[in-house]
Amino acid sequence: MQINPIAYIHTDFKEKFGIPRQSGRVPELLGRIVFEADYRVEQAFAGIEDFSHLWLIFDFSKSHREKWSPTVRPPRLGGNKRVGVFASRSPFRPNSLGLSAVKLERVEKTEKYGITLVVSGVDLLDNTPIYDIKPYIPYADCIGDAKGSYADDHKCDSLNVDFKQELLQVLPEGKRQAVIKCLADDPRPAYKENDGKIYSMSFAGFDIHFTVENNTAVVQSVEKL
Amino acid sequence: MQINPIAYIHTDFKEKFGIPRQSGRVPELLGRIVFEADYRVEQAFAGIEDFSHLWLIFDFSKSHREKWSPTVRPPRLGGNKRVGVFASRSPFRPNSLGLSAVKLERVEKTEKYGITLVVSGVDLLDNTPIYDIKPYIPYADCIGDAKGSYADDHKCDSLNVDFKQELLQVLPEGKRQAVIKCLADDPRPAYKENDGKIYSMSFAGFDIHFTVENNTAVVQSVEKL
Repeated sequence: MQINPIAYIHTDFKEKFGIPRQSGRVPELLGRIVFEADYRVEQAFAGIEDFSHLWLIFDFSKSHREKWSPTVRPPRLGGNKRVGVFASRSPFRPNSLGLSAVKLERVEKTEKYGITLVVSGVDLLDNTPIYDIKPYIPYADCIGDAKGSYADDHKCDSLNVDFKQELLQVLPEGKRQAVIKCLADDPRPAYKENDGKIYSMSFAGFDIHFTVENNTAVVQSVEKL
Repeated sequence: MQINPIAYIHTDFKEKFGIPRQSGRVPELLGRIVFEADYRVEQAFAGIEDFSHLWLIFDFSKSHREKWSPTVRPPRLGGNKRVGVFASRSPFRPNSLGLSAVKLERVEKTEKYGITLVVSGVDLLDNTPIYDIKPYIPYADCIGDAKGSYADDHKCDSLNVDFKQELLQVLPEGKRQAVIKCLADDPRPAYKENDGKIYSMSFAGFDIHFTVENNTAVVQSVEKL
């Protein structure tokens, strides 16, 4: 089947590193969904504001591969344990489709793009193609007694964040909480033996360099790009 | 983007009429997911049994249209109120992708098809193409305070079911509860003024004919196909 983007989302992430491991983990992360010309039809969104959350079906556009691999190594398992690709939400999948629940903050009409949706809790790269938007239906989608395996076990994993005031102030005020929470979510990839390493997270036009020591992300510098 | 089915699901529904309005509403509805040859790889499912529920991203294969319509008429609104297509889970969408959460009953290896997944709470037509299977991750996917607009308002709508014993016994025992609950879920389409009409639901190789009177589905006959 041929599917075509109906929209693209604009976020503060130009690179994958630093994006929270699931949607909703950092409510301060905003995104704006801008529709392709054909879909800038106000009627198509009638009633959408009565839903608090939306599903986005999107393209893991930076994770296309020629061949799929039956197993992946989830970062939450330390990156050295393999699980089946269908037992993971890894971006490397036979069909490169992603699924995220985001909060609908508001519907905003803009002069340039017509109707747009401002959403929060995003975990998507800037310019990710969106194939479908569906309302979140609590009675069907919120399964209170579901078991989430290793994702459950590690849902509270987090780092302390040591972000000195003078460095924090380099960031615009509205972006500070988002960065702190993204760091707390532990953006490090699979292999973590390498403590002392300087990691670099790009966000909202800034490069944030940090190390990880004793379960604490220590910000070393913030550079405007 | 070109996407290709990784699997097809086999269910008791050869026709759309009678399928519950969302997944999970009728836990007795079983389906078996049979994979395409390339994906019958045991490793690809390693660890999947530690998740209780799965997301299926599928093709609304019987709802393809040349042109999409910006608005749809949800049956739950009586079929005479229009909402935006992106404020609905209607099968008639710009990209014909569906999303359902199902319960994973078991992983079953079969001689003919290799590894298969038996799932319950299905709301899919027999032979629906599946593009992706992802584990349900409760901390991200179950949003307890989400608001579901008209879907919330109508989540408890149901019919009484008058299914005489002699008719019920025409069905195999394992299918009876499923049929009763599908009828209770009120399968009637949009326009309901037409009481006295005989509806026909096809399920598991039987045609179930019923009328609706005073909020009760009255089964009139059951025919083996």
